[in-house]
Amino acid sequence: MTDRLQRQLAFLTELDKLKLILRRTSVIGESRLENTAEHSWHLGIMAPVLAEYAPQGVDMERAMSMVLAHDIVEIDAGDTFAFDVAAHDDKEEREQEAARRLFGLLPDDQQAHYRGLWDEFEARRTPEARFANALDRFQGLLQNVGNEGGTWKQYGISPDRILERMDPIRDGAPALWPYVLEVVQRFME
Amino acid sequence: MTDRLQRQLAFLTELDKLKLILRRTSVIGESRLENTAEHSWHLGIMAPVLAEYAPQGVDMERAMSMVLAHDIVEIDAGDTFAFDVAAHDDKEEREQEAARRLFGLLPDDQQAHYRGLWDEFEARRTPEARFANALDRFQGLLQNVGNEGGTWKQYGISPDRILERMDPIRDGAPALWPYVLEVVQRFME
Repeated sequence: MTDRLQRQLAFLTELDKLKLILRRTSVIGESRLENTAEHSWHLGIMAPVLAEYAPQGVDMERAMSMVLAHDIVEIDAGDTFAFDVAAHDDKEEREQEAARRLFGLLPDDQQAHYRGLWDEFEARRTPEARFANALDRFQGLLQNVGNEGGTWKQYGISPDRILERMDPIRDGAPALWPYVLEVVQRFME
Repeated sequence: MTDRLQRQLAFLTELDKLKLILRRTSVIGESRLENTAEHSWHLGIMAPVLAEYAPQGVDMERAMSMVLAHDIVEIDAGDTFAFDVAAHDDKEEREQEAARRLFGLLPDDQQAHYRGLWDEFEARRTPEARFANALDRFQGLLQNVGNEGGTWKQYGISPDRILERMDPIRDGAPALWPYVLEVVQRFME
């Protein structure tokens, strides 16, 4: 086995741990929490199905790779609840460290590629990153809709804070925004 | 909301159920079984990482869409254990029925697209389908390697049957085949 293949398999095997990272949202209709690998799969298939609502010029392969990889850092850094302000203080530092270790398992060229994809997702500037961030928020919304308000109700989040959280959808998939407004009004009034 | 978006969201919401379908393999180092959504995520990220071992001419976006969607039918048809001969008798019929219902939730054009992708995966003829099938088998192998033999040992599967099961790798990612042989020998002697 080449050193290159060995590194690729070490990375892919390490990724199994993303299946153990729990989010705050529940699988629809279930009491158990969703894990980040499932969440990422959902985004991966949402991307092509909702492609017509993406910003112009999105490279779909790149967008799909981005959403599938966007939360890998949680293997080391854990999931940070969207509405937990205190936990966001050291989120970036924890995730930077995680990115170094995890993407560092890959051969150098692929390490640079995935590190770049993750940085791009976080910076939210390219069409792919804007679309990927919109999907990330929209998937949480679909779960909360399916769970009759889900974490929004459970943690008593105000409509203003929900809309602030959902804001990347306005820019990354604007045609979905009226539905976001309607849903937040429906569950939170 | 347009009828089109409504159908797309109905499909994407229904997909949440794939997180409840359990496979026979365990998450590495854990006693709990892996579910099909996690498995599909793993394939989605394996595809670009292992792209250099794919057959010539693979369209990576298509291959990724295919692996992310290849097991959706299990929402209705359940997971059929690879080494359960009897369960394979009516597998095709169950899955055909499931494909009709599940992809039928989508708008007509997307229904045709996903139905086509799934048929293509099952037929294993195009470069994308050969690569996708190879990844599907290879992911199970990585899990069993991580679990010191995993389901192969648990169910007492013979090396010949394992290699027969892994055969799509020989055609869909031939450079990985020597590793397959080495692993089966290591765990099954």
